[in-house]
Amino acid sequence: MQITSEALERAIEELARLPGTGRKSAQRIAIHLLKQSEERVLTLAETLIQLKKSVSRCSVCGTITDRDPCPICNNPKRVNGTICVVEEFQDVYIIEKTNEFRGRYHVLGGIISPLENIGPDDIRIKELLTRLNSEEEDIQEVILALNPDAEGEATSYYINKLLLNYDVRVTRIAYGIPMGTELEFIDEATLSRAFASRTAF
Amino acid sequence: MQITSEALERAIEELARLPGTGRKSAQRIAIHLLKQSEERVLTLAETLIQLKKSVSRCSVCGTITDRDPCPICNNPKRVNGTICVVEEFQDVYIIEKTNEFRGRYHVLGGIISPLENIGPDDIRIKELLTRLNSEEEDIQEVILALNPDAEGEATSYYINKLLLNYDVRVTRIAYGIPMGTELEFIDEATLSRAFASRTAF
Repeated sequence: MQITSEALERAIEELARLPGTGRKSAQRIAIHLLKQSEERVLTLAETLIQLKKSVSRCSVCGTITDRDPCPICNNPKRVNGTICVVEEFQDVYIIEKTNEFRGRYHVLGGIISPLENIGPDDIRIKELLTRLNSEEEDIQEVILALNPDAEGEATSYYINKLLLNYDVRVTRIAYGIPMGTELEFIDEATLSRAFASRTAF
Repeated sequence: MQITSEALERAIEELARLPGTGRKSAQRIAIHLLKQSEERVLTLAETLIQLKKSVSRCSVCGTITDRDPCPICNNPKRVNGTICVVEEFQDVYIIEKTNEFRGRYHVLGGIISPLENIGPDDIRIKELLTRLNSEEEDIQEVILALNPDAEGEATSYYINKLLLNYDVRVTRIAYGIPMGTELEFIDEATLSRAFASRTAF
């Protein structure tokens, strides 16, 4: 096999390292970029460099931000006293999209997982307790919004147990049948959960 | 919705413009890059810039290359006198991977398509005829390797007709049952073609 362009080959190799991008999609992306104007490709490259250079973690909530504290922690219009605990910053993103929650966040930056050797000290639980002790934040409610899998459950139980010592209401988001689906397609674990968590009509 | 990082937002927007990358995959790629070292992200960005800056078309065969003429046209070990005609440079790539063909290529850079208003003059057919007239190349055989769809067929017929005036053998790659599949899963058009093109055992 003879390669006619080393530059193309290198670009394909680099792109194929991205998640969800096999060699074929990397090839398609490289060919697409070849057809774009130089300006567009420069913009893409520059954006990726900026992403890495200007983004860090908020020292309060732990989410990804260009400024510290992040615009959510820094926004006086966000309801003080309510904290939503999530596993990672992308969850903040997802919850923000619903426009449902007006409080602040706490990003754990991981989940307790004995199998992967991640204990309570490896995620931002201490930082959560510090915030609970802060008079400025005056936290009334902690909403747990972790993923409904074994690690998420274990971490939720762990945090809930810790917070028994604090004068704070601990809640969790509802797990049940997703909207717009048919019961037929729901797995048994979700259905059991939906029955156990039934509410008055 | 409150955005905590403009840089992340811009990166997701840019990545979502790539082919086969929706907003969700763009988000996944951006988050992945955030977790990489700055050096790795710089390498990726630099590679994309180089891709655009150093790659052009070979003036002989029309494929993508960093040097003109391309390493295939320039390789004295490649069989002179046999040209394989393909639609786009990625086809060169695919054929080279088989290590089956040792001649040279001619990339049309498109296909005759009345529906998309692409005629014979819009693709590199004139350049093919120039090569056929060249004494240096001394072409004995033109192998047509276009896609087996309506446009590929029409373009193959068109080129074949033009080449009747030249002292050159015109062949096409075999279309038939792909290796490793079962007849059960083959569409009728392919099966008909396989019967019509049957060869002596």
